[in-house]
Amino acid sequence: MLFEGAEKKAEILIDPNKCDLSTLPKEYWVDLVAASGATILSTIANGQLTAYLLSESSLFVWPEKILMITCGETVLVNSIEKFINDFGLEKVRSIIYQRKNEYFGHRQKSSFSDDIELLKKYVPGKALRFGNLDSHHTWMFHWDSSLIADPKDLTLEVLMYHIKGKAGAIFRQENQTAQTIREFLNLEALLPGFTCDDFVFSPFGYSINGIRGREYFTIHVTPEEFSSYVSFETNINLNKDETYLVESLVSLFNPESFDTVTFNHELGLKVKTENNLIPVSYHERLDSGYEVMFNMFQKIPDGPQKAITL
Amino acid sequence: MLFEGAEKKAEILIDPNKCDLSTLPKEYWVDLVAASGATILSTIANGQLTAYLLSESSLFVWPEKILMITCGETVLVNSIEKFINDFGLEKVRSIIYQRKNEYFGHRQKSSFSDDIELLKKYVPGKALRFGNLDSHHTWMFHWDSSLIADPKDLTLEVLMYHIKGKAGAIFRQENQTAQTIREFLNLEALLPGFTCDDFVFSPFGYSINGIRGREYFTIHVTPEEFSSYVSFETNINLNKDETYLVESLVSLFNPESFDTVTFNHELGLKVKTENNLIPVSYHERLDSGYEVMFNMFQKIPDGPQKAITL
Repeated sequence: MLFEGAEKKAEILIDPNKCDLSTLPKEYWVDLVAASGATILSTIANGQLTAYLLSESSLFVWPEKILMITCGETVLVNSIEKFINDFGLEKVRSIIYQRKNEYFGHRQKSSFSDDIELLKKYVPGKALRFGNLDSHHTWMFHWDSSLIADPKDLTLEVLMYHIKGKAGAIFRQENQTAQTIREFLNLEALLPGFTCDDFVFSPFGYSINGIRGREYFTIHVTPEEFSSYVSFETNINLNKDETYLVESLVSLFNPESFDTVTFNHELGLKVKTENNLIPVSYHERLDSGYEVMFNMFQKIPDGPQKAITL
Repeated sequence: MLFEGAEKKAEILIDPNKCDLSTLPKEYWVDLVAASGATILSTIANGQLTAYLLSESSLFVWPEKILMITCGETVLVNSIEKFINDFGLEKVRSIIYQRKNEYFGHRQKSSFSDDIELLKKYVPGKALRFGNLDSHHTWMFHWDSSLIADPKDLTLEVLMYHIKGKAGAIFRQENQTAQTIREFLNLEALLPGFTCDDFVFSPFGYSINGIRGREYFTIHVTPEEFSSYVSFETNINLNKDETYLVESLVSLFNPESFDTVTFNHELGLKVKTENNLIPVSYHERLDSGYEVMFNMFQKIPDGPQKAITL
């Protein structure tokens, strides 16, 4: 059974005057992620931000916000529903739910339409799709209670497909060591000063969470040869150096194609790597003011390839 | 409910010394297509070839061969199973089953893996995939009983996505007339001398079969705005003028992207249209000698697009 790397993602903001999520015990988050079908593997915290490494991706908890990312066959909307029921909608300021195109969509327990049907029982949000159904795309459902988004609230997602070369070899090695992976990634050079927590899955697969004050990054690697997927996400302010970060990640993982999803970044079609890239771009400004961009980058292939024998 | 235009296709060759399929009554073909979940809408015949227009695509019957193409939520492998059970495997020389990537794969009654599991109960065929799972691709299962493919047995499929401009406007007009569509297609200029049989579906959708001796062409149009799909297929010998035919179809339907699947054609990466096209190509020689090429062509977009509101 091949593993589905493509992720769902939920970001929920609450009113900080009505609740402080950092005071909740770990047991609450164990139950919340269980609603999606995931479990907590390990935890790091620094007083401003707690990062839970999950059996399927990650959960980050700030005093006024959660960010939950789940892959595989999890049903993330069930955790959103539980959160709304547990806290009450009057404490919630904004819900953004995203879902990436899947490799094996027919195996998922719910479709995006199913997910939206559930969420609309609670909030009258809007649903969008960035990209065509027959290509890379990301679904988005968003609702807010008169939120005015902080323009400094940045998010950068880099979603890479079909990793090649050294990255492919290292991550497709069964029972790879965390040490070898950490040396390959050399994240301290790219993202210095983060406290990190990583996990090597069996027979392969890798997750890492990093926190630095209120900042996070997270990387999840599903290396299977014909369905490989690597996701990177961060909220750090790169002072417009985001293209350098994207280019460094693409150089490291050497994907055949990759997408970026950004909130409030300048990142457009400026990414350049050593290969020629065809960019396709979608843009939307959400009611709350978030400027969302979805970019797909496809390398121009060298020539005909062999069909894949199953 | 949006309609799934992407098709499954079965080509079954039998031993002409053991059976003549042209002698079978229409009732047999009614039952055969019913096994997939389709019905026969109309029929044309010329003594060498019979073409059935189906509720979901087409069936062509020669004395020694059937070609069945079905779209929507049909389960074409059930018709293949029925055919094998009705005739006996000892009469069958070759089975080629193809399945295109779907827009709404999660709604299908079976996956390609399910289909192959069924077919492998009867024949030890081989399964391939041309293209990556996260992009346009076509699945192929093939088995033969020591068949040596006729190099003059040509097939050209042109599969077009996201039709624009005049083609989009004409086919998205509800309850469009057959006359308007025929004038727009002007097929007599491109494919002269064919006897044709067409059908306009409600509220939209269009199918046409054409036969000329042992030659056929078929076109199926699913025009829905965000999931439009047009398939063209023929076995005519174009004397290497196949690029002209592909370019004419692409000019007519004006798709954002299109794929070609060819058996024994020279068609490679030579297609040129007025827009810049990025080709991605896959090739395989089947055991029987068929040279199969799958080419994807993507237009370079002009700039950022708006997200699609659902």
